[in-house]
Amino acid sequence: VELSGIGEMGLIRLLGRDAPRYAGVRVGIGDDTAVVRAQAGRDLLLTCDLMAEGVHFQREWYSGCPELLGRKALAVNVSDIAGMGGRPLYCLVTLGVPPGLELDFIRRVYAGLYDLARECGVSVVGGDTVGFDGGMLLDVFLAGDVAAGGALLRSGARPGDLIVVTGDFGLARAGLELLKGGPPSWSQDLQEGYAAAAVTRLLAPPVRLREASALAGTGLVHALSDTSDGLAAQVSLICEASGAGAVVDGALVPARPETRAVAGLAGASACDWALYGGEDYELIGAVRAEHVDLVRAAMPRDAAPLAVVGGFTSDPAVMLRTPGGGLEPLGKAEYRHF
Amino acid sequence: VELSGIGEMGLIRLLGRDAPRYAGVRVGIGDDTAVVRAQAGRDLLLTCDLMAEGVHFQREWYSGCPELLGRKALAVNVSDIAGMGGRPLYCLVTLGVPPGLELDFIRRVYAGLYDLARECGVSVVGGDTVGFDGGMLLDVFLAGDVAAGGALLRSGARPGDLIVVTGDFGLARAGLELLKGGPPSWSQDLQEGYAAAAVTRLLAPPVRLREASALAGTGLVHALSDTSDGLAAQVSLICEASGAGAVVDGALVPARPETRAVAGLAGASACDWALYGGEDYELIGAVRAEHVDLVRAAMPRDAAPLAVVGGFTSDPAVMLRTPGGGLEPLGKAEYRHF
Repeated sequence: VELSGIGEMGLIRLLGRDAPRYAGVRVGIGDDTAVVRAQAGRDLLLTCDLMAEGVHFQREWYSGCPELLGRKALAVNVSDIAGMGGRPLYCLVTLGVPPGLELDFIRRVYAGLYDLARECGVSVVGGDTVGFDGGMLLDVFLAGDVAAGGALLRSGARPGDLIVVTGDFGLARAGLELLKGGPPSWSQDLQEGYAAAAVTRLLAPPVRLREASALAGTGLVHALSDTSDGLAAQVSLICEASGAGAVVDGALVPARPETRAVAGLAGASACDWALYGGEDYELIGAVRAEHVDLVRAAMPRDAAPLAVVGGFTSDPAVMLRTPGGGLEPLGKAEYRHF
Repeated sequence: VELSGIGEMGLIRLLGRDAPRYAGVRVGIGDDTAVVRAQAGRDLLLTCDLMAEGVHFQREWYSGCPELLGRKALAVNVSDIAGMGGRPLYCLVTLGVPPGLELDFIRRVYAGLYDLARECGVSVVGGDTVGFDGGMLLDVFLAGDVAAGGALLRSGARPGDLIVVTGDFGLARAGLELLKGGPPSWSQDLQEGYAAAAVTRLLAPPVRLREASALAGTGLVHALSDTSDGLAAQVSLICEASGAGAVVDGALVPARPETRAVAGLAGASACDWALYGGEDYELIGAVRAEHVDLVRAAMPRDAAPLAVVGGFTSDPAVMLRTPGGGLEPLGKAEYRHF
């Protein structure tokens, strides 16, 4: 079936047919708006993240696995809800369709998005579809909820709290280097499993939703956020919101040995990749030192491991302890959009 | 100030500073997600609409009035909430910034969006900002609410109900012709006030929110929707959802005398413009004949007038009564995105 043959309403119907729909949805795709039930005693969480071709991804990265593009477009939003300690519930998808984009590609993108939606219990309840010359767009809006007053904000970190993170860092950046080709020697030096893990981290990051639920459930986590823009940037944002400073110990930031090896081959510092690479979508939280073991014990058995990477301070400076033991200002290394 | 000088975080801070914020917002712009209070006894309404340069608008249309672009991006979403009989509450804005777009233009776009947000009591609580080669994007996500179970769906029309509409049709289409230049004779034939009204309708349509509230408040409206895709398309959608047919009387569809004149000068049928032109963002509803006067009496004094343009039928055909009195199938004339 050609896209031009089915029209916008045809595409919406086709994509809407398989949309996951769970309890709480009164009206899904097909009216002026979706209608969902509000639940008493809960706060709503609202977020959106755009994935634009040429900015956030190259279409050829996904030519063999369009499903991962759909998965990522939702995952980055689920990650934001996880970063509040909430649960994702309802999603709307704006799709920009450039000329020549194949219907099969679009269907597989949505299949991947729907798969993750099912894994997370998210209903897909609406969206907008637009033929558009400027490249493929996937803009996902996600609504979730959390116990009233229970959202874990960036502003909750207190001096003396330790900085805890899930999983490992720098992997997405390694994946980007691998996708770009990297030095020819890499393919023989790398374990195939690692290359796949690194590329997958970039193409469709994990969602740390169970980890976030467990962290929030302890009642012992003062601040929580995801690290989409990079670990260093997120530490700075938490410090700014909390009126605190921090010291991050570069030697404690978890990175796979292979990530260190790849960074070395690329002539870069693994610590830089881990701190500034971004796109790892791990969690970062603030926990009192005496509660770290309790929090760790509350994590699901197969969860991404928790690591302590430093602490928040009353001194407002945001510092990095280098491998040599010295202190230097922690950079922000914001991605430059303009 | 140059856009490149302030970066993404700088732009977000600048735009966020003036964002309207009303009761119910616990956390606005600046954390992983917005946090808003859910209200017991209400259903949530969720919708989104993308405005993309080159598809929905040309940037030069707004060169003298960027505020209207921001106003329209929100207005088309408010119109969807109005079409459910609900009230708009919380908005997130995804902004795509092409190279060379001036900061002053962006600020004025947001000023216009914020103005309409204030008029409607909408809090702007989040968004995403992306540097993007493919043209300017404004994707607005709007959450609203309505009494639980009280949303006015497309599926509620019953055979025998009359079709009522607000305001007048074909005006946006006339505005489009005027923006495109039209025949040279137009400028002297037209009242200046009409040209301004037509262009304004296209650039920033009215929001029929008070009208929708009044209609919903009567409890006598069986189905309600907005007419963004055109009156004919919306009648067809309501019929499909309601399992009914309809007869629309072309002679009853309200259009300004000047719209008829402009259509004539353009060699088109005013009835075609009114039925298929789209972008008028009026309301369409289903009301029993004996309740039309009651409903009309419930409208605010300065509201857009209500007109009866036909009726829903048990025969599933969707028909147009032509000025000559004959019946022909009502077309859908969907905008072709692909």
